[in-house]
This record gives sequence, C-alpha cells and structure tokens, in this order.
Amino acid sequence: MSTPNQVLASAAQLHQAQLTKPQGSLGKLEELAIWFAARSNSAMPARLQPAIVVFAADHGVAAEGVSAFPAEVTGQMVANFVAGGAAISVLAREAGASLSVVDVGVASNYAVTAGSSAQLFRVPVRAGTANLRLEPAMSEQECNKAWAIGVGSAQEGLVRSKTLLIGGEMGIGNTTAAAALICALTDIDPIDIVGLGTGITAQSRENKVQVVKDALARARAAGAVTAKDWLMQVGGLEIAALAGFYTGAAEAGIPALLDGFITTAAALVAVKNKPEVADWLLASHCSDEKGHRHALAALQLEPILQLGLRLGEASGAALTLPLIQSALALHRDMATFSSAGITTK
Amino acid sequence: MSTPNQVLASAAQLHQAQLTKPQGSLGKLEELAIWFAARSNSAMPARLQPAIVVFAADHGVAAEGVSAFPAEVTGQMVANFVAGGAAISVLAREAGASLSVVDVGVASNYAVTAGSSAQLFRVPVRAGTANLRLEPAMSEQECNKAWAIGVGSAQEGLVRSKTLLIGGEMGIGNTTAAAALICALTDIDPIDIVGLGTGITAQSRENKVQVVKDALARARAAGAVTAKDWLMQVGGLEIAALAGFYTGAAEAGIPALLDGFITTAAALVAVKNKPEVADWLLASHCSDEKGHRHALAALQLEPILQLGLRLGEASGAALTLPLIQSALALHRDMATFSSAGITTK
Repeated sequence: MSTPNQVLASAAQLHQAQLTKPQGSLGKLEELAIWFAARSNSAMPARLQPAIVVFAADHGVAAEGVSAFPAEVTGQMVANFVAGGAAISVLAREAGASLSVVDVGVASNYAVTAGSSAQLFRVPVRAGTANLRLEPAMSEQECNKAWAIGVGSAQEGLVRSKTLLIGGEMGIGNTTAAAALICALTDIDPIDIVGLGTGITAQSRENKVQVVKDALARARAAGAVTAKDWLMQVGGLEIAALAGFYTGAAEAGIPALLDGFITTAAALVAVKNKPEVADWLLASHCSDEKGHRHALAALQLEPILQLGLRLGEASGAALTLPLIQSALALHRDMATFSSAGITTK
Repeated sequence: MSTPNQVLASAAQLHQAQLTKPQGSLGKLEELAIWFAARSNSAMPARLQPAIVVFAADHGVAAEGVSAFPAEVTGQMVANFVAGGAAISVLAREAGASLSVVDVGVASNYAVTAGSSAQLFRVPVRAGTANLRLEPAMSEQECNKAWAIGVGSAQEGLVRSKTLLIGGEMGIGNTTAAAALICALTDIDPIDIVGLGTGITAQSRENKVQVVKDALARARAAGAVTAKDWLMQVGGLEIAALAGFYTGAAEAGIPALLDGFITTAAALVAVKNKPEVADWLLASHCSDEKGHRHALAALQLEPILQLGLRLGEASGAALTLPLIQSALALHRDMATFSSAGITTK
C-alpha cells in the first residue's frame, strides 16, 4: 500500500509560510493543501479531478419500521440520480465532479430514463440484505463480492485519471446497519449511536435502538469478531462496497473524501480491516445523525463542515469540494512575500 | 428601506418540502434558500452575481505596536490585490465574483501594475487615521465622507446588476479599531474581545488590550454616545466605508455577506445606527479572532463556516459563496417527489 510522502508535505508547509498572508491565517485550508501535497506527486498539487460513486442497495431490516420511507424508495432514488433530479445530481454538476451509481443490491424494480446524467452500473449481489435483526445480513461470499465491486470501482475505468474519490450511498434502512457496525467496532452503546435517520419519531427511534441491540446480541452469539465478520452479520451490501472502495483507493494511492454517517461506518470497517487505509481518508462534514461524530472520532478525523446535513448520497462531500479546490488554488496561485515585494518584520 | 418578502419565503419553504429528500435533511442549505427567496424577486432565486469590494486604509494606532506587520504593508497589499496575488484575488476567481479595491485612506505610496486583475479606486479621505489611543481617529466630516463612499460603492456602477455584495478590508492595525468598536457597542470587556490579529505575541496582546482600554476611556470622556460617535472616535476609514456599504446595500435591497472580525464590527456600527440594516446581513464564517463570535452574537447572526481563518480581505465570505450557490441550485434544480415519482409515506 502507498504511504503519504512526508517530504512533499514539508515542502508544501515551507511554501505556505512564504505566501502573502499572516502565518496560519488560512487555518484549515493550509492543512488541506499540505495534506494533499503528501498524497499527490507534487508539493503544488494540481486541481483535483473528483469522481463521485454512489453505491445503492436495500436492507431487509427495513421491515422493522426503522425508516420514514418505504423500501421501494431506494430504487426510485437510483432512477432519480440517473435522471439528474437528486441532490447529489445537482451538487456533482456544481462541483464539476463525475457521478456514477452502482447498484449492488436494490431489491425493487426501477426504470431509468435514457440520456442520463449519471452512469449506472447494475451489478446486484443479491436483492437486498436479509433482516439483520433475525439473521446474518449476507453470506461471507456475498460480502466479499460486494467488497470486490467497491475495490474495482476505485481502481478501474470508472475513475480513470481521477485524483479524488468520493463514495456515497442510497439504501432505505441503512442508518440501522451503519449504527450497528459503529457500535460493534467502537463498543459504544446503541443509545448514543442510533439516530433519527430520514426523520423518524422518537418512539420509532426507541424501536430502532432495540433492533440494533438485538442484532448485536445475535451476531455476537454467532461468533462475530473481525470487522468483516460484523460487516457480513449487521452491515449492508452498499456498505461492504464502500469499505472495498476506500480500501481500493488507498491501495491505488488516491485520496478518498468521506460523506456522512453511513460512509463513515464503511470507512471504520475498512480501517479496522487494514489500518493503513486511514492514511488516505479525509472527512468532509459532521452530519446531524447522532452517532456520526463518534464514528469520526474513532477514525481520528476532523470534519471540515458542519451544516446540519443528514441526507447522504455523497452530498456533504460534494459540498466540501469547492473549499478543497480553493485551498489548493490558494496554495498554487498566491504570490509570495518576495515576489510581491511585501515587507515582513 | 426595503424589507424581506415573507410571502416569497413561505413559498420557498413549501417548495423545499416537495424536493426529493427527507424534510430538513439539507440543514443550513434549506435555510439559505429560503433566506434568499425573501430577498430576491422570486421564490426560486437565480444564481447570485456576487461583487467583492475591499476597502483599504491605514491606522495611526499601528504606531502602538499592535500588529505583527509594519504599516506600509497596507499599500503593498493593495498592489497585491490589483496584481492578483493575494488570497482574495485567488478566491474571487474561484468563486466567479468581481473584485474591486477602494482606497479610502492608505497612508503610504504604492505602485500598481497595469493589466490588473481588480479594479482600483483611489478616493483617500485622509492618509490614515490618527492614533485612536490619543485622539479621535477621524473628524465627523471625514467619517461621513468615508461612510458615503461605502454607500456609493453599494449602489453605483461598481456593483451594477450584482445580487450579492461582499465587503472586505485591508488595514494594518484594524483589529484594534474593530475591537474598540465592538467593546463600545456591546459593553463587553476588552479582555474578551481583543485578539492576536495578524499573529502578535501574548505580551503584545496585553499592550493591545491596554490601548483599547485607553481609547475607550478617552472617547467616553469626549462624550461618545451614538454608533457614529464611536466610529469617529475609535474606528477606521475602511470600517466607516464598510458600515456605509452595508447600509447602502440594505437601502437598495441587496443582501450583503459579512466576512470576519472587522467587517462584523462595521456591520454592528451600521445596525446600531439603523436597525433595519440587519435584515439584509448574512454571516459567512466565524474566524479565529477572539472577539468575532461575540460580535456575531450581538448581531444575532449564525456563521456558516468555521475554518480557523483570520485573514480578512473578504476571504471567508468568498469561500462561503460556492455553498450558497449550491443551496440555491438545489432549491431550483432538484426534482420533486411527484415529478420523480417517488413514494412518500
């Protein structure tokens, strides 16, 4: 696996100190420029070529009433991504990022329009997971297959010549699976992790907490130990694909920008499975979903934005892109004290 | 003075509820779309045409050792803005905003290059303010003149056809003047407002606190009562111009996006002078300058970003622009549940 280049990071840091601004006055933007310098082939990283890949799949646990929307919305939203009407469709255009959708397990039928605004790849591993409260969400083989689709998505034609990878997700019920994974991998109580998802009532949330507790007890009894065990037991197909996606990005030495609660749960799986993956991950935002900050903290990641978002789809990551591009543009294009003839004490 | 249109705000709010996302899941972005709807002529506000105007002037109080940079840097940075090498030069290009610089009182000589990347208007009211620790920073007439330049900048050719106004500033020593104004207008102790500015030492900050205390005592003894009294006594020429700029924007019914500590101090002066100005102000970020959050709170404004910035120049506002444009693009371009055929419960 590639490792960040600390020589380039040091060179970038020295360059920052010469730019026409008080030292440190660009705050987080300076850190970002240095972070990307260590992960490109230059102390002056070029404008990023971002690729957004949204993984979609259904969840058997939706039958437990854990979402404010019915399960068929997963497929309907895939069609909406392709037609260009979803939030991520708009934000990908705004940020100049490519948008692809990978169906790794949508259960319902859905029709997509021609002349689409996003590439769609239909490679369903199975028609949604089983109900993780009652049985393993998927088999080991299915889990590995979804993971491999994610790895391939980060390394193959989909993202050729791209220099920043952004994973997103769609899957009614997937905050339940993500919460269960975060609880399992951090040992935090479900009461502190399970949130309102798409906007359920406080009473529905109590039920959701119980569903997660039951799932954790069942999987523990079934002998879940490793991150991949837990992924298979209480995860989701799109979450497995995302964990593979982050692993594949790290193997290829391409930085990946996290989105919200579900992508962070997937990143946690990837990092618990292979700790070096963490070197290539950047957090975009902290969402309003209750457990997100705990999951980010477990990864020792600091989010750039906090805007009260709780949508997923890669929307928070896409919104962060212009800030990152600006950080790199400042790093490349600002004058230095000596080139601008500015007095320093 | 214009007032925001609550009918358009309500129409925008109803529209938000029909878009293909869980209710409220775009957090702050939903609020922004509704805020702009109330301040445009449409429930579906068009892409903003932003104009950045940076006001520059010197400060006599720089002689008290309150900055990490010598006073001649003000003029040198104006030349840097015009040449295109400053942070705001890069960020204005990134955000697609026009950039103008208005010299309302730079004390040193500076040469600008031809073929510039920003329009420069040289209308100095005087060669920097007097030392506000010892005497009034400017006369009432000078204060009114700088204010009028700001009003004109928000209403005349400079910003013709623009739909969002962003004020910025450059002036070595101006965090001292801004801190004094904020203390005077909020009754908060200087110890909680005076910060490190361009990056002074803790010891220099102690001196800066004393300078502000002396200035406040002197001005109080001289009978300062109104916001304009305080502005004349302990303000700055660029701060007076900014206060006029925000007032002019509000009079013309054009929203204005604040930047950092100094622009927020100017906004506080404008609002204390005419409370209705507040209806047209939006906060972009909370900077690392100690007193900024107090000044924002006094204006009851919630910043969108918090990135540890402390540069000024309108840099934080420019960085916020893509987020605002994205909020409006989502509002205009997302599909509705019915147009996309998506099931709701």
